[in-house]
Amino acid sequence: MAKYAIGIDYGTLSARALIAEVGSGRELGEAVYEYRHAVMDETLPSGIKLKPDWALEHPDDYLEALSVTVPAAMKNAGVSKDDVIGIGIDFTACTMVAVDKNGDPLCWKYPDNPHAYVKLWKHHAAQDQANRLNAIAEERNEKFLARYGGKISSEWMFPKIWQVVEEDPDLYDEIDRFMEAGDWVIMRMTGVEARNSCMAGYKAIWHKQDGYPSKEFFKACHPKLENVVEEKLNTKIYPIGSKAGELTEEMAEKMGLNPGVAVAVANVDAHVSLPPAGLTKKGQMLMIMGTSTCHIMLGDEEHIVPGMCGVVEDGVIPALMGYEAGQSCVGDHFNWFADNCVPEDYMIKAREKGMNAHQYLTSLCENQKPGENGLLALDWWNGNRSVLVDVDLTGMIMGMTLTTKPEDMYRALIEATAYGTRVIVDTFEKSGVEIEGLYACGGISQKNPFLMQVYADVLKREIRIARSTQTPALGSAMFGAVAAGADKGGYDSIEDAANEMGGTLPIVYKPIPAHSAIYDKLYTEYRRLHDYFGRGANDVMKRLKEIKKDQNA
Amino acid sequence: MAKYAIGIDYGTLSARALIAEVGSGRELGEAVYEYRHAVMDETLPSGIKLKPDWALEHPDDYLEALSVTVPAAMKNAGVSKDDVIGIGIDFTACTMVAVDKNGDPLCWKYPDNPHAYVKLWKHHAAQDQANRLNAIAEERNEKFLARYGGKISSEWMFPKIWQVVEEDPDLYDEIDRFMEAGDWVIMRMTGVEARNSCMAGYKAIWHKQDGYPSKEFFKACHPKLENVVEEKLNTKIYPIGSKAGELTEEMAEKMGLNPGVAVAVANVDAHVSLPPAGLTKKGQMLMIMGTSTCHIMLGDEEHIVPGMCGVVEDGVIPALMGYEAGQSCVGDHFNWFADNCVPEDYMIKAREKGMNAHQYLTSLCENQKPGENGLLALDWWNGNRSVLVDVDLTGMIMGMTLTTKPEDMYRALIEATAYGTRVIVDTFEKSGVEIEGLYACGGISQKNPFLMQVYADVLKREIRIARSTQTPALGSAMFGAVAAGADKGGYDSIEDAANEMGGTLPIVYKPIPAHSAIYDKLYTEYRRLHDYFGRGANDVMKRLKEIKKDQNA
Repeated sequence: MAKYAIGIDYGTLSARALIAEVGSGRELGEAVYEYRHAVMDETLPSGIKLKPDWALEHPDDYLEALSVTVPAAMKNAGVSKDDVIGIGIDFTACTMVAVDKNGDPLCWKYPDNPHAYVKLWKHHAAQDQANRLNAIAEERNEKFLARYGGKISSEWMFPKIWQVVEEDPDLYDEIDRFMEAGDWVIMRMTGVEARNSCMAGYKAIWHKQDGYPSKEFFKACHPKLENVVEEKLNTKIYPIGSKAGELTEEMAEKMGLNPGVAVAVANVDAHVSLPPAGLTKKGQMLMIMGTSTCHIMLGDEEHIVPGMCGVVEDGVIPALMGYEAGQSCVGDHFNWFADNCVPEDYMIKAREKGMNAHQYLTSLCENQKPGENGLLALDWWNGNRSVLVDVDLTGMIMGMTLTTKPEDMYRALIEATAYGTRVIVDTFEKSGVEIEGLYACGGISQKNPFLMQVYADVLKREIRIARSTQTPALGSAMFGAVAAGADKGGYDSIEDAANEMGGTLPIVYKPIPAHSAIYDKLYTEYRRLHDYFGRGANDVMKRLKEIKKDQNA
Repeated sequence: MAKYAIGIDYGTLSARALIAEVGSGRELGEAVYEYRHAVMDETLPSGIKLKPDWALEHPDDYLEALSVTVPAAMKNAGVSKDDVIGIGIDFTACTMVAVDKNGDPLCWKYPDNPHAYVKLWKHHAAQDQANRLNAIAEERNEKFLARYGGKISSEWMFPKIWQVVEEDPDLYDEIDRFMEAGDWVIMRMTGVEARNSCMAGYKAIWHKQDGYPSKEFFKACHPKLENVVEEKLNTKIYPIGSKAGELTEEMAEKMGLNPGVAVAVANVDAHVSLPPAGLTKKGQMLMIMGTSTCHIMLGDEEHIVPGMCGVVEDGVIPALMGYEAGQSCVGDHFNWFADNCVPEDYMIKAREKGMNAHQYLTSLCENQKPGENGLLALDWWNGNRSVLVDVDLTGMIMGMTLTTKPEDMYRALIEATAYGTRVIVDTFEKSGVEIEGLYACGGISQKNPFLMQVYADVLKREIRIARSTQTPALGSAMFGAVAAGADKGGYDSIEDAANEMGGTLPIVYKPIPAHSAIYDKLYTEYRRLHDYFGRGANDVMKRLKEIKKDQNA
């Protein structure tokens, strides 16, 4: 008798539920819920104005998503609730909820207080706190910095908490706990607070052996933060792959399921994508490619890799080190180009051929030889995450002549993102983390074979593509099946689930040696400019940004 | 009784005749003739194919232009031929005619031989000879090199002659003389060979005191070239402002004029433009702004200015040093951008407002503050003429983010050309050639007030604009009036002509100190990148071009 698991992928603007068949991994039904409140970055529902760089969400959206998407997806799949054995979710992070003793979000009580709402991952109003936190950590020579590329992001948990301490100390006192929204949704579903190691490790400076940063460190930041971990968090962290609990009566009814279904601890959307690609072993790297790219790499030892986003034991697969790196701008480059740089006659021709701008530009440049257009770009339109960890870097393109065409520049941007990936890959290997297999998932990886071939040529490695187009939701479902356990028709380990339910497409992108030979030369040039502009030899990009800031003030 | 002078401006694709009133400088009538053969860069009229980089013209076009445009312009002006006292012409250079003993172009005899035609200024097939000529000159430490920014261009006279020697030695033997097309047209009009100092000085390495390069130098280039000056040129050079002779009966009839009208020696289109702007004094610089910009600067001493195109005594104004510098790509940048980088929705909005791409982009960016868009470009889409003298440099733009708009990049290109001009201006001053007054002429200078304001802000100097929109043709007419002399109702000197007939518009572009302060900072950044990429610290642009060449081979 077939069994089913449910995965729910919480994105920035919507949530998606997916019903997957345990064993085959077949995706039988899905449903999407667009958040009613969307991202609140200008006003609260009551009309209260927000300051610049704020980004809030409403926790009601998360609960409504459960009661809307799960029944709909179940209906689409046409399966019986009696055959659903497990549920998993993945969430954006750090997306932080402040709750009272009952686990109720404070915004239910204080709908006019911005600090009482969910601070979304891209809430950037705690940059000042992040800067001070980093300065103090550097001054104190805190060991944890090296695990995070030398810099704690303003998007993470402690800068966001510190902002509340400083801007609304009374509310801070009233807050019982700060939780990742993912952990909070799991708590609502099961009645159990079971914080996951992925979010704690990558977003809250938690380490399996060393725990959180010390009381001394937090005290140096702010006296009220000295005991923040004990007072406002929870030191019990569950490794990824754990069962959090079981679905409560109340939530089972809302979701159209049976109570008692196993629920896995929450996961992060990128990190949860490895098992559906069949990846659970050291030496495997997955590129989750979309507007930006996240690189998740599995290893069996903790190495310090310069400029990565984080390394967390149990962070991705139990008992392995999960390394995260990232490129802040990938598909975003191409979309920027399509929106801002494609001339009218191109769009007319594209429409004649039934193509969009991306397809038409690709058709014009995909048969060029590497280097034929003479261009070279630095893929820093949105700064550089790994390995330079510098948001103030900006884009550059060179080599233009009067015969340069739009498709030449489009191709140069694609190649630049490939060089950016190669810097990351080379840095991992140079730091002792060997990459044995390279994989990709996400929209671009399935939609743009030309781009994937460029990546294979530049990286001089074979690249395989995840079979599923919904890797996060499928990954969450797989963790749900693991939470259920083999006895209930699920799995006892995520490795077993990945072996059966995960996998890649038949296509393999193989490097073409003649292309790689030219790309080696171009990468040498890229690397030289990367270091010149990115490592302090000429900080012109920062100075331009400084002038820009002054002139816009 | 009013007197009139005729100026004929020979361009690359057409010639324009202008009838000007002596004294007032009023432009009374004009007519244009599009060359029947245009530029021959693929085949001869007989269908014979040309190799890459060739660019020929047919001398018949130049003569036909005289008999078509002058009568038409006279008719438009409504003046009597009895009141025409002088004629002047300006021409592209080096545009070289090979003639027999009678002064007949060899193509009349050998219509199937490409070498028998006029080699246009942009004939680039003598690059190999130019390279060898430069190497030999450097090796021999030839003093003349420094007067030409260290490099003789393949566009100039001797590389073009050398190409004939090597590729068609028999024709070379049969050729009686090589002439600038400008000098040749004057010879056809007057029956007198009166070569002008402007073309000889800027395009044929002639120097008032030192003459042409030595026999030893030419012999080192090629044995047959040892006596090239005596055998194929003419050592008698007339200073600019001289009278060449008088219109012959035959030509007077063809042009609808009286025989005996005074004819000035020929001039180059850029260099002839100073008097119509009222400029004849040391310390004055004129920017002739179009697809590219030519900078002509007057001084009273010969200084060596690194990277200029040439310095010639009597080259522009008698008894003064005429310095030439240039930017190979100015309007061409903006046209490239308009053709390749303006999105469809922009063009739709531009049409709604009745604007072209340039006008619309300008309307969007002209109110930005300097530095507000965060961008910086190197204006090298067509290489760098002054002061780097390097055709292998290419364009660069940096500072892009995901919010960068097309108008930001358009403005950055405008600013980059202004920084490029400042490098030239600064180099002149550093070399001892002081600039007391800065002027501009050419289409851009009258059509784009925003751009001229940027130039004033970047250069921190007032800029005045020539009154005439046809400065070359008016300048030629003024030299025609000088050839006639005061006795005949003209002038005894070009200074007198310039005082009466030349001048600037009432508008003066004055630097805005707040803008200049920011542009000083941005120029510092430009200069640093200029030297980094342009002076060998990182030859990435050349290496990219080399790879491009290989991959296109």
